[in-house]
Amino acid sequence: MSIFTEKLGKSSRANESRVVLALDLSLLIGEKDFKRKLLERARMVLAEAREHIVGVKVNFQLLLPLGLFDDLRLLIEDASGYGLPLIMDCKLNDVEHTNEWAARHFFDAGFDALIANPFVGWRGGLERVFSVAKDYGGGVILLVYMSHPGADEGYGQRVVNSDGGTRFQYEVFAEKAKSWGANGVVVGATQPRIIERVSKIVGGEIPIFSPGIGFQGGAISEAFRAGTSYAIVGRSIYQSENPKQSAREIKDKINGIIG
Amino acid sequence: MSIFTEKLGKSSRANESRVVLALDLSLLIGEKDFKRKLLERARMVLAEAREHIVGVKVNFQLLLPLGLFDDLRLLIEDASGYGLPLIMDCKLNDVEHTNEWAARHFFDAGFDALIANPFVGWRGGLERVFSVAKDYGGGVILLVYMSHPGADEGYGQRVVNSDGGTRFQYEVFAEKAKSWGANGVVVGATQPRIIERVSKIVGGEIPIFSPGIGFQGGAISEAFRAGTSYAIVGRSIYQSENPKQSAREIKDKINGIIG
Repeated sequence: MSIFTEKLGKSSRANESRVVLALDLSLLIGEKDFKRKLLERARMVLAEAREHIVGVKVNFQLLLPLGLFDDLRLLIEDASGYGLPLIMDCKLNDVEHTNEWAARHFFDAGFDALIANPFVGWRGGLERVFSVAKDYGGGVILLVYMSHPGADEGYGQRVVNSDGGTRFQYEVFAEKAKSWGANGVVVGATQPRIIERVSKIVGGEIPIFSPGIGFQGGAISEAFRAGTSYAIVGRSIYQSENPKQSAREIKDKINGIIG
Repeated sequence: MSIFTEKLGKSSRANESRVVLALDLSLLIGEKDFKRKLLERARMVLAEAREHIVGVKVNFQLLLPLGLFDDLRLLIEDASGYGLPLIMDCKLNDVEHTNEWAARHFFDAGFDALIANPFVGWRGGLERVFSVAKDYGGGVILLVYMSHPGADEGYGQRVVNSDGGTRFQYEVFAEKAKSWGANGVVVGATQPRIIERVSKIVGGEIPIFSPGIGFQGGAISEAFRAGTSYAIVGRSIYQSENPKQSAREIKDKINGIIG
């Protein structure tokens, strides 16, 4: 078991939560002094929601303006201080030379897990990401089906097997997640039937993270009944006037469903 | 025509070059004061090679340690001062909310083009990247086939069409590049037959950028005869003891092939 997986389980039990906070704030760009405001807002939302979440996910929206080894450090220290695992949603899909250094930089900076796209393949692709993650005790979470309408073009396409039969792309990805030893998979909450199918393939061994709950229209109850382990929630919390209350409400709603 | 495409054509004519310098240096991480050394080395290689290249490609190796709005600015200013278009190789493959802000940040910082993965699809995926790029006059370059061994798993798989027939994934991507109005496609130099096939699909309208020449074993002459427009070259230049001479030799070799 990776350190990431242990940390995730521990914070889930401590906070009785299945909610990963996606801090993909972007609302302040272009304003005077927007970097400072962005950082302050992100830290405030995290501080408010911290008792009701299981972890934190960071995207390009914070990474690019704040800088990995610059202002973002303060947010990373906050999450670490709260005992919350930190996931970098970089959707890595490069060759190993680049993937390796990206992974090293993110883990060095204090991230506990990375999201990667299995489409890039193993040899000369993600193999090195998994080995670097192992060195650090970090996690690798693989995209299996995303939550936006265009996901059907790639994730939902049918692909030809070596025996000439066909399968859905997300089935291929779920099997790769299992055989490569992924620490999590992402399946959009908007597709409960796909969550169910992926859940059968990964057999309860790999947690399923589902974005798209709330703002993107995915129904919480259908997703969790289908096999979602953790909901990834962004705008419904950070755009709320009371992030603490919103995080608690979503947490309670999920706990009511999973009993 | 995008401002990026114009700038690329102009610098190609001015420097009589088809060589894009990939500044994916990573050799100094962990050393004391490695960020300063990394920046100095990158700027030195660029200054040495500048008369023999058509543009510059930046990856996570520089972006993460140096920071987009921090030390990386100096390199961006250098490239701009040399009249060289700057490509951010972020391989974007996220939902529109994240893609849009990533694109805005990169263009705001001074990049002329971005690389994106068409696998993520159009609606709620890359549609917004193309519209943001249009606002800035920036370019969008799509991955069609990568240069590493594992690329066959995704880019090389056969997918089922709506009529039940099958095609290669890279053929689907090449067609999307054409219909979405991409300003370039990436096809690894290691696969000349795929370059040829993609070249037929995009019909000479969209330049083909080929990484994998030199260090990764792709043969320059086969790639250019098959339809490559620009070679992406990294280690063969920046690991050279004389980056200027290496860049000139590669440039001259290509010019000898394309006559």
